[in-house]
Amino acid sequence: MAAVLLLVVALVALGSGRGDAFDPNPLQDFCVADTSSKVRVNGVSCKDPAAVVPGDFFFAGVDKPGGTVSKHYAFSALPVQIPGLNTLGQSHVRVDVPPGGVFPPHYHPRASETAVVLEGSVYFGFLASYPDNRLFDKVLRKGDVFAVPQGLVHFLYNNGTEPAVLYATLSSQNPGLVLLADTLFAGALPDDLLAKTLRSGNDNHIVEIIRRKFGRP
Amino acid sequence: MAAVLLLVVALVALGSGRGDAFDPNPLQDFCVADTSSKVRVNGVSCKDPAAVVPGDFFFAGVDKPGGTVSKHYAFSALPVQIPGLNTLGQSHVRVDVPPGGVFPPHYHPRASETAVVLEGSVYFGFLASYPDNRLFDKVLRKGDVFAVPQGLVHFLYNNGTEPAVLYATLSSQNPGLVLLADTLFAGALPDDLLAKTLRSGNDNHIVEIIRRKFGRP
Amino acid sequence: MAAVLLLVVALVALGSGRGDAFDPNPLQDFCVADTSSKVRVNGVSCKDPAAVVPGDFFFAGVDKPGGTVSKHYAFSALPVQIPGLNTLGQSHVRVDVPPGGVFPPHYHPRASETAVVLEGSVYFGFLASYPDNRLFDKVLRKGDVFAVPQGLVHFLYNNGTEPAVLYATLSSQNPGLVLLADTLFAGALPDDLLAKTLRSGNDNHIVEIIRRKFGRP
Amino acid sequence: MAAVLLLVVALVALGSGRGDAFDPNPLQDFCVADTSSKVRVNGVSCKDPAAVVPGDFFFAGVDKPGGTVSKHYAFSALPVQIPGLNTLGQSHVRVDVPPGGVFPPHYHPRASETAVVLEGSVYFGFLASYPDNRLFDKVLRKGDVFAVPQGLVHFLYNNGTEPAVLYATLSSQNPGLVLLADTLFAGALPDDLLAKTLRSGNDNHIVEIIRRKFGRP
Amino acid sequence: MAAVLLLVVALVALGSGRGDAFDPNPLQDFCVADTSSKVRVNGVSCKDPAAVVPGDFFFAGVDKPGGTVSKHYAFSALPVQIPGLNTLGQSHVRVDVPPGGVFPPHYHPRASETAVVLEGSVYFGFLASYPDNRLFDKVLRKGDVFAVPQGLVHFLYNNGTEPAVLYATLSSQNPGLVLLADTLFAGALPDDLLAKTLRSGNDNHIVEIIRRKFGRP
Amino acid sequence: MAAVLLLVVALVALGSGRGDAFDPNPLQDFCVADTSSKVRVNGVSCKDPAAVVPGDFFFAGVDKPGGTVSKHYAFSALPVQIPGLNTLGQSHVRVDVPPGGVFPPHYHPRASETAVVLEGSVYFGFLASYPDNRLFDKVLRKGDVFAVPQGLVHFLYNNGTEPAVLYATLSSQNPGLVLLADTLFAGALPDDLLAKTLRSGNDNHIVEIIRRKFGRP
Repeated sequence: MAAVLLLVVALVALGSGRGDAFDPNPLQDFCVADTSSKVRVNGVSCKDPAAVVPGDFFFAGVDKPGGTVSKHYAFSALPVQIPGLNTLGQSHVRVDVPPGGVFPPHYHPRASETAVVLEGSVYFGFLASYPDNRLFDKVLRKGDVFAVPQGLVHFLYNNGTEPAVLYATLSSQNPGLVLLADTLFAGALPDDLLAKTLRSGNDNHIVEIIRRKFGRP
Repeated sequence: MAAVLLLVVALVALGSGRGDAFDPNPLQDFCVADTSSKVRVNGVSCKDPAAVVPGDFFFAGVDKPGGTVSKHYAFSALPVQIPGLNTLGQSHVRVDVPPGGVFPPHYHPRASETAVVLEGSVYFGFLASYPDNRLFDKVLRKGDVFAVPQGLVHFLYNNGTEPAVLYATLSSQNPGLVLLADTLFAGALPDDLLAKTLRSGNDNHIVEIIRRKFGRP
Repeated sequence: MAAVLLLVVALVALGSGRGDAFDPNPLQDFCVADTSSKVRVNGVSCKDPAAVVPGDFFFAGVDKPGGTVSKHYAFSALPVQIPGLNTLGQSHVRVDVPPGGVFPPHYHPRASETAVVLEGSVYFGFLASYPDNRLFDKVLRKGDVFAVPQGLVHFLYNNGTEPAVLYATLSSQNPGLVLLADTLFAGALPDDLLAKTLRSGNDNHIVEIIRRKFGRP
Repeated sequence: MAAVLLLVVALVALGSGRGDAFDPNPLQDFCVADTSSKVRVNGVSCKDPAAVVPGDFFFAGVDKPGGTVSKHYAFSALPVQIPGLNTLGQSHVRVDVPPGGVFPPHYHPRASETAVVLEGSVYFGFLASYPDNRLFDKVLRKGDVFAVPQGLVHFLYNNGTEPAVLYATLSSQNPGLVLLADTLFAGALPDDLLAKTLRSGNDNHIVEIIRRKFGRP
Repeated sequence: MAAVLLLVVALVALGSGRGDAFDPNPLQDFCVADTSSKVRVNGVSCKDPAAVVPGDFFFAGVDKPGGTVSKHYAFSALPVQIPGLNTLGQSHVRVDVPPGGVFPPHYHPRASETAVVLEGSVYFGFLASYPDNRLFDKVLRKGDVFAVPQGLVHFLYNNGTEPAVLYATLSSQNPGLVLLADTLFAGALPDDLLAKTLRSGNDNHIVEIIRRKFGRP
Repeated sequence: MAAVLLLVVALVALGSGRGDAFDPNPLQDFCVADTSSKVRVNGVSCKDPAAVVPGDFFFAGVDKPGGTVSKHYAFSALPVQIPGLNTLGQSHVRVDVPPGGVFPPHYHPRASETAVVLEGSVYFGFLASYPDNRLFDKVLRKGDVFAVPQGLVHFLYNNGTEPAVLYATLSSQNPGLVLLADTLFAGALPDDLLAKTLRSGNDNHIVEIIRRKFGRP
């Protein structure tokens, strides 16, 4: 089990869930992820059905913060690691955001998302795609739920004074996670492409300033 | 029973779906359910995108019990009614179960389910289909999560001393709900079919005893 | 071939077919089920296309009753075992019901169903999900066809004087089968949960009476 | 040909689909085809659920030949017209073929097919796609079933002395039908394209001979 | 890489692409086809994600004619061979047709198609399914695009004086290819079935004439 | 920005979708987008099949640059507007990029993409999702093709001296478009959230500098 845990932690780490609301339909009662298998397919191959146990559908610890704390954004994300969710089209994650913390703009390439606030309050929103670009936002309080369409950019910001806790559900067993600023500034994109992207022509100055904040030399 | 009925009627009336992890993919950013439309299609038709507002993706009140209390089983169910979830492949419900209460065996014909315990403790389980029929069960405590494959029978029983609260997520915008005992005993099935189903041959005696408990004359 | 047969019989036994009307699309001409493979995936892995023969798409014997007779309900079910139906989104079963016999209320978690009466006459019906619960029923005679939506409870009862024969088609290669009464009474559900489910509070009396009929001590 | 035309027109007029094993999943218990609706969508719009009756899931007459007899091929096809199959991913047809009759090579662009022989005997086969092109064929007798993968060309030929009756199931509510020879020779393809297709260069002689048999001047 | 190439060439040869617009959704960022794997599933199993390189998403040579020239129809087809397209729901092919050449009537059992003319001009069309049978055709010139619905018969004919070049995109990673005339006349269909299909009763004369052109004795 | 806006508005106004490789399957031969319909569904409703003409599947002009030039990035994008692609799971766009121009990092929330270079040369790449973040990039020359998995960030940069022309195919009729830098800096995101996103704490200085370049006061 520790192996599964590590694997999944490696996979999803801070804030990536698993699951996709639009995954292919299941073709049997269950296809519990076989993490020891060497077979690689779309999704994950299944363990022997005869060896499946209740623990394959179980995860504990969502009542407390977990996972690792993001160094730069202060939030933490605890993915709900359930091997039995393989082929079942959903995944979940607990997110903790301290006062002043943000879960910066990001999206899930293979899922829609819904989040319920369990504690505290957050400013939450998503943006429509081009050329609409409208912002749909709300201050969410305990007991509020907000939905994000598939693949759209969303964010949350704890601009209150209490720690905030959310439970997010995603419509894929492996929704994926893309953080916009990290992708632009921490990754391998060339400086000159980035300068042009920031509408700075051939002037890399701003790019360098920001990239230093993202740990790039 | 009437209570839950009202809840669900309210849900349907509001045009909010209830979620299905395997719904057809969306073909636009959002297709917010247009509850005033007379057009009937697979799913729900959309309101004018220009008229969509943040409130279309929002629901409040999951922090408190809601909906109506089931007369016979004591649980209450509060569906998360979000018109914006139309085409997004998920839905959610808060369930409250007092000590001694059950959410009796049931299934969702169009969804898998995952439930997280927010308060208290419940005995939770699902059953594999024929001819496996294995029971996969656990006593769930606060912070525990359990998953149920698409269409399989599951139940929960608060055999503790504290009220239990769960937040359930389903992999369809409209998973549907079938309660096994209600379907057999409260519904329109003929007595003689039911007697045979209960392996009582042509003896309707037991059927009559049970049906009286289900309000049938 | 005998091996395949046994495997499938074990899998589907009385009345479960294989196939799902909403299975993922095929990605090649055919992916004939390789029953000797140790690889476990969503569905079944494929045998070498070069080794595929006409017999992989063939099944004989639907003109006669087959499979095993249900001890308690008198019906028999003969699944159409065709390895080539893997990835093709359908499965079929012949059902024989003698006069007085029932195929008790059940559902398929992953398929819709359509049945045609080949001989005799049956009372056939399905029930809508909660809170509609309407019964849609008909007396079907030779040459009549009736359709059952995905995942809804249905049943058939030969209340005539002639043996009845049906040919049922399901919209999945592995629809699954759940028998309501067996699930409630023959399986591993705890007695106290069941007593509450039957609205008998803490009185296990009725549960015990019924369970004895289902072979439970 | 006109006969089959009428059949299918009747089918379409009645709003019954014909089945596709890979249709989008349903998002409600049922979406019975509303044949009076002016709304045109992918599939068919639904009638008011409150007005749905058992007859919406019912069809009678599969025990006798029906539809109209194909003038050129002698077979007749009786589509099972069930408005309730809209969104349910399957359809069915009874096919009668007299001795010497053929259902010439054809395919369904949106479905796999399985056929069971109810009476008589037929030579049945399908062909793999390019460049495999293998023929998978069998002489089918009463009680035999044969499966055809999605979109592949298949045919049947009653080369026996008894009338043959088959019941075919397709994995879409509207699989579509394309007859190869009719498409090539009876339709609107230009003669010169056709001559080249028949590897006759610019010699239209053969094309003209065949087209005369297909009623083309 | 040569192995992949050969494999795919064998698979798709003249004009079959890979890809399907309606393939099951991906469950991870990428599942690059592992052509050395012995595992056979719906689609292709994946190579180790850690070993994936940019070249897995790359193909060169679409700027020139390629593949093999069809002996009988003069066109050539160059499939775009990209292992990374596994699970991504599309494939592509360059087609060259000299003046007077045709790509004879054919269809893709698992995909829709769109073709853009890069050079020259062609007469292009598709035919609706039975009983509509309408021809939708156009003379396409450089820069024109034409779409073909899933599974429908289409063709192209270079009746101009310049070589024509098209780039076709298909909505499946493995759409399949069926050539109508080849299927009827070059394949394994029995002569007598074919004579009846050509409405020639028991007269095999025409069948023999055509089949000789297709290399059949 | 306004330029691209106009392009896309034109596209949407014309009712042409833009393609998604994983759209729901079609349920009829064609469902040509009816741009005059007031009915709003997932996708677009269909025009009367009897009124469909060849022009519904046709688009001209891909041989020349088109649409409007992006003011800030110099590229232009010409969407292939074909009403008949509704329900067919694909869309296409011609992209022109002058020397020094970029199509800045962006993604499609509902599609994979493949691009072929028709003229010139570009530096092209995509980034894996978190926490992999690997860059998969290539310098593409005329005749090269590169594939981008569903929903992943990609970009192109003409760092050569010749104008570059690409033809991109997407696996949805309406893939959607999200530009990362525009979303972050030109849109409605609050400054303080953005400052934190850029790891600048409560210092809005950098945000203001960049936003001025994006036309924000």
